[in-house]
Amino acid sequence: MRAVAVLAGVILCGCAHLPKDALIIKEQGSFAAGGVVAQHSGSYDSSKFDNFKPYPEGQTFHGDHAHVFYQIPFNAHPLPLVFLHGAGQSSKTWESTPDGREGFQNIFLRRGFGVYLIDQPRRGKAGRSAVAANIEPIADEQMWYEIFRIGKYPDYFDGVQFARDEESLEQFFRQMTPNTGGFDDEVVSESIAALFEKIGGGILVTHSQGGICGWSAAVKNQNIKAVAAYEPGNYLFPEGELPEAMPSRTGTLTGRAVSKSDFLKLTKIPIVIYFGDNIKDEVTDELGAENWRVRLALGRLFVEAINRHGGDATLVELPKIGVYGNTHFPMSDLNNIEIADLLSKWLKDKGLEEKK
Amino acid sequence: MRAVAVLAGVILCGCAHLPKDALIIKEQGSFAAGGVVAQHSGSYDSSKFDNFKPYPEGQTFHGDHAHVFYQIPFNAHPLPLVFLHGAGQSSKTWESTPDGREGFQNIFLRRGFGVYLIDQPRRGKAGRSAVAANIEPIADEQMWYEIFRIGKYPDYFDGVQFARDEESLEQFFRQMTPNTGGFDDEVVSESIAALFEKIGGGILVTHSQGGICGWSAAVKNQNIKAVAAYEPGNYLFPEGELPEAMPSRTGTLTGRAVSKSDFLKLTKIPIVIYFGDNIKDEVTDELGAENWRVRLALGRLFVEAINRHGGDATLVELPKIGVYGNTHFPMSDLNNIEIADLLSKWLKDKGLEEKK
Repeated sequence: MRAVAVLAGVILCGCAHLPKDALIIKEQGSFAAGGVVAQHSGSYDSSKFDNFKPYPEGQTFHGDHAHVFYQIPFNAHPLPLVFLHGAGQSSKTWESTPDGREGFQNIFLRRGFGVYLIDQPRRGKAGRSAVAANIEPIADEQMWYEIFRIGKYPDYFDGVQFARDEESLEQFFRQMTPNTGGFDDEVVSESIAALFEKIGGGILVTHSQGGICGWSAAVKNQNIKAVAAYEPGNYLFPEGELPEAMPSRTGTLTGRAVSKSDFLKLTKIPIVIYFGDNIKDEVTDELGAENWRVRLALGRLFVEAINRHGGDATLVELPKIGVYGNTHFPMSDLNNIEIADLLSKWLKDKGLEEKK
Repeated sequence: MRAVAVLAGVILCGCAHLPKDALIIKEQGSFAAGGVVAQHSGSYDSSKFDNFKPYPEGQTFHGDHAHVFYQIPFNAHPLPLVFLHGAGQSSKTWESTPDGREGFQNIFLRRGFGVYLIDQPRRGKAGRSAVAANIEPIADEQMWYEIFRIGKYPDYFDGVQFARDEESLEQFFRQMTPNTGGFDDEVVSESIAALFEKIGGGILVTHSQGGICGWSAAVKNQNIKAVAAYEPGNYLFPEGELPEAMPSRTGTLTGRAVSKSDFLKLTKIPIVIYFGDNIKDEVTDELGAENWRVRLALGRLFVEAINRHGGDATLVELPKIGVYGNTHFPMSDLNNIEIADLLSKWLKDKGLEEKK
């Protein structure tokens, strides 16, 4: 808890006029990471300009990069936390919660970690996509309410860790932002590998659909020193060890086979996976329970495979350790401090707070 | 320069271990502002779910809001600065510069201002649009290089305030991000008015296409206590006083007529407008010079109209005060500290640093 230590130091040395909850930021900024460049044939000639009609001859298009905003606190731990959002979301996932409390961005800054917030390629501020997209405003929020396990619309699950006022739900729905090009986990993992090439060592924290991008990025770049995944959507397995496909009401889940040598790279770093509440092991007609039932089941097999091959993976089912009511967004749920405490303890137990 | 004063205080009181360039943030976070809600007819029934195919009956769609990230430094001036980007850009405009220096976000935090960075509706992290969009990856960057007055591609203007290494130009191109719905300055100004309704008094700083949204927002919400506009694209005029349309090679510019009572609201607040270098008064074949020639000329008439009706507007043509080489992005040009100093002096001269 270095940030606290620093503040204590500040107060002891007479800076009591500094609010004790101030964030002391040594450095912050943003940049694009990775991406591709397309060069159109021909030569550029501005005399072809006609009222902003396209004249691509000889022009370039930079796209498929990630946008990254970072903050490094004073006296930070050596390894920063790098946060990747999930489907339909952006780096907003880690900022203020829907009910206006602090998210993981602030919580882990206070705990002395540098934080890097990613907008993945074709999303958010990294919207410049190398492929075309058609975006339609389709009413779908009640479906997401159920898929994300807030409850059975319009009801909330008993004890769900989500504020029940209308404004919080509205802010939650407004967090969603569309793909500006088709989701491609290869494109995303390439941009994350490029980010770690630039910043050096760090700890990757993924959410949901970002899970598969995180495993692939960790195979591509060994600057990723650990991975913490919140409810990952899919997993990598060694060729020949791919589990049977798992059907569910929300689709059939099939793991991803990679070469054994690539898979073994994931056995060299500590891995932790967290799943929230209201996921059942048996088949039901609940969209949320069904969508995550198979992803949790395949996660158990992924952890077994990692450990069977000499790795260090842990899967935490929050209700099984007495933490109840979490939705698909534990990082912004009402108990997100308790969720952060679990991650902090894991980071400390694995020596990642001091690791360089 | 309160941030500096605070740091001096910190150091004097014995906290010399704090880096003197640390940012001391009292509060930071993000939220959605404004927007609309569409409610599809019918009643929601999750049994209609079929492999994520749309089933909008009875579902909602929240869209057309702004995403806002804010930071309040310790001991801040009463009025924060609220930053709105221009066409094809996002809040990235105010973050790190293409060559990796600090942008207006950090510069004005250091000067003791709270900062609010907007992604306007249908852009960046506020991508959820109430109207459909088709996004195509069209090579157009050499055109923007010229429109944004970096030079005549591939040449740089003599003395242009833009770093000449390839990486900086690549980062600049990657700042662009597309509309996820058609640009609608009414939608944007509504979200900005909603933002100021939420946060109270503040100073709006706009760029380029954001200019017209800023004038309209200041008409809609008197919590906007001043407007600083960098190279605004268009202007409001009182009915009956609309200047003649101004043709140029990049299109014909026509001001926007509003009721006299609405226009007079802009005469109650201080306004400053800045234009950079390499804009000529005569017609040329340069895309950049032509695109901004008419917007500068109409800006002169806007300032005359504001002041003729008892207002307080100033237009600063940077080369005419000896500041040379600025592109369309003075806030991130190589001399952006000098550009920020000009804004700071204006804010101080107008009493806006202490105004509540």
